[in-house]
Amino acid sequence: MADFDPTTHPHRRVNPLTGEHVLVSPHRTKRPWLGQTEPPQQSDLPEYDPKCYLCPGNTRAGGQANEKYEHTMVFENDYAAVLPPPGPAAPPAPHPLLTTEPVEGGCDVLCFHPRHDLTLARLGQADIIRIIDEWSNVYKKRGTQQGINYVQIFENKGAMMGCSNPHPHGQVWSLSAVPSLPATELANLKKYSRSTPPSDAPKGPLGRSCLLCDYVHFEVGVARDEGRVVVQNDHWVALVPWWAIWPFEIMLLPYKRHIPSIVHLTQAEKSAFAEILSQVTIRYDNLFSCSFAYSMGIHQRPTPPASDAIPEDQDEDNVAHLHLHFAPPLLRSASVRKFLVGFELMAEPQRDLTPEQAAARLRILPDVHYLNVQK
Amino acid sequence: MADFDPTTHPHRRVNPLTGEHVLVSPHRTKRPWLGQTEPPQQSDLPEYDPKCYLCPGNTRAGGQANEKYEHTMVFENDYAAVLPPPGPAAPPAPHPLLTTEPVEGGCDVLCFHPRHDLTLARLGQADIIRIIDEWSNVYKKRGTQQGINYVQIFENKGAMMGCSNPHPHGQVWSLSAVPSLPATELANLKKYSRSTPPSDAPKGPLGRSCLLCDYVHFEVGVARDEGRVVVQNDHWVALVPWWAIWPFEIMLLPYKRHIPSIVHLTQAEKSAFAEILSQVTIRYDNLFSCSFAYSMGIHQRPTPPASDAIPEDQDEDNVAHLHLHFAPPLLRSASVRKFLVGFELMAEPQRDLTPEQAAARLRILPDVHYLNVQK
Ligand SMILES: O=P(O)(O)O[C@H]1O[C@H](CO)[C@@H](O)[C@H](O)[C@H]1O
Ligand SMILES: O=P(O)(O)O[C@H]1O[C@H](CO)[C@@H](O)[C@H](O)[C@H]1O
Repeated sequence: MADFDPTTHPHRRVNPLTGEHVLVSPHRTKRPWLGQTEPPQQSDLPEYDPKCYLCPGNTRAGGQANEKYEHTMVFENDYAAVLPPPGPAAPPAPHPLLTTEPVEGGCDVLCFHPRHDLTLARLGQADIIRIIDEWSNVYKKRGTQQGINYVQIFENKGAMMGCSNPHPHGQVWSLSAVPSLPATELANLKKYSRSTPPSDAPKGPLGRSCLLCDYVHFEVGVARDEGRVVVQNDHWVALVPWWAIWPFEIMLLPYKRHIPSIVHLTQAEKSAFAEILSQVTIRYDNLFSCSFAYSMGIHQRPTPPASDAIPEDQDEDNVAHLHLHFAPPLLRSASVRKFLVGFELMAEPQRDLTPEQAAARLRILPDVHYLNVQK
Repeated sequence: MADFDPTTHPHRRVNPLTGEHVLVSPHRTKRPWLGQTEPPQQSDLPEYDPKCYLCPGNTRAGGQANEKYEHTMVFENDYAAVLPPPGPAAPPAPHPLLTTEPVEGGCDVLCFHPRHDLTLARLGQADIIRIIDEWSNVYKKRGTQQGINYVQIFENKGAMMGCSNPHPHGQVWSLSAVPSLPATELANLKKYSRSTPPSDAPKGPLGRSCLLCDYVHFEVGVARDEGRVVVQNDHWVALVPWWAIWPFEIMLLPYKRHIPSIVHLTQAEKSAFAEILSQVTIRYDNLFSCSFAYSMGIHQRPTPPASDAIPEDQDEDNVAHLHLHFAPPLLRSASVRKFLVGFELMAEPQRDLTPEQAAARLRILPDVHYLNVQK
């Protein structure tokens, strides 16, 4: 019998952050695609759109006028998914299986840049640093508010990912509860740190091992030739994780030391973060020569450490290791996406190319944006 | 302070089958939608399409010709996600966090009807019973094959849900591994049955309580007026579960006795199953007067009981209680869907109307298909 070949033989891999499996069926990309194709992403946007509710000076749905901002702008979402505390207590559950937990908090929108037609992939280093600073500000402001126990920074990019306005922006939802997925990740990080003897990778608080430090140390070190790394700089690496679900999923994380959140970054680490964000989003656009759709989320400490906190390395909440997930749907071209439906929704995620194949395709792409080359 | 009102106050509910939360933000439907709209579902399909690889007598991608079938047709997928056993053993893991588990099995396609232009919503009782019989046949055939430990029956309906051919059909993926989601459901059913004292609801094997029997007994009984039931007949009920994620998600299940799988259905229960499948899919089409897209999956015993099995009520594998999940994306109209993206992918599913509101809208719809009324 032939030896096991991950590019031929279907197999499952485990995501140690969530405990979930992914079914890898690499031979499946060969099938013809007769299904839905996506409309092309609009690429001829004006620099300013008088009808855009995020452009400087324009009026939003709620009636307020935007500042004539020059860099970034933050405002509270007019249609927030959660409302500010205090709210009423929940009624008693009508049955032990039917529990209600009130959630409070706030939702912010963060405009990345005044120009309507730009995206992260087309912004310069200085502009991206301003966005990171703004993320830190919101994380600090919201994360220290009474009753807030979790801050989720994310971006939906592209109509395909439910984004209702192409103006470059992201969101921040701050909640009284730690949501399911980060709660699971944090529990698994904590379990790992308590049960796994430290390796020669950087360590988390209390000198214990960190799942993500261990993983990334392996990927940029001995596993370098296995080819999941897409791009790497002095402090950060972008890789297609071993357990990736989306065709060109990327995880972005610092690899030189254990870093619990964006407020823990040094200036050099922040610059390197801006640089790699640019390199990842440029490569994404270059893959199919389009404005590449994705959802992106930052996972880190649920909220920043309090000012009177116990020493950093004694604080078990610091088991979190800062990382970003990029979940992009496109599979074969600018118009053919992967649908995570039927089997994926009812049984388990399934992917059609190996993470190593995806990383190889992203790695060889130029790091200059295709629109800047054509000029 | 106002009393807690689930249609006003954001809150979280727990899905006891998975342990996951959903964030309910009912006030959010008020926001204007400026994002992507879906193309209309094609409604002028021919009864026979010479280019369709599922129509009777036509040739498939793999080169084989379809029978001139009159009712249902089953064939092995030409682009299966898993391959038949035996496959090679996996290589040793390069790192404890990076494990590979080979998966083997087979993927079948099940055509529901020879007519290219019909769907479950437009088939009669006799035709739907034939589909249920075919599901049972495949479940029995695949589920008793050497090395198969799980059979997943599902349907992707509509281009929006990644279905590449409108000809009415579903799929069956049979695997050597129990996938993540059903494994979690089964573990939770088992845990519940061992730890929860029996109520006056029907009971599972060993006279123990069953999570779904308890839940559905409550919904069709004392909670009747809370309004999550959409339609009910002598043996089955369709309801929007307390923990629904998708806007008009439905769970379909038998409520009169504990039933581990489709092979355990009596004739009367099978007829009632066909009837309720018709009623649910008709209501779905009637909601926005369109061919309603969804993913549907059957959850039950991973494989049918072996012929030399221990007595039914002694078999702990019978903790499974047969149920179907319908995951439909449309939210506001035939062209405006809910995107489960950013926050949902990175943190936790979020919904914009309460399950009770969704059920109320589905409940009042006529049970005659809108296309049959217009004639
Ligand atoms: O097999 P199909 O219908 O061509 O493919 C569809 O269903 C599969 C199973 O849910 C998914 O993996 C595919 O992404 C989807 O397009
Ligand atoms: O807030 P937006 O961008 O209008 O809405 C988008 O992102 C939200 C958060 O991921 C989702 O709940 C919505 O379904 C999606 O359309």
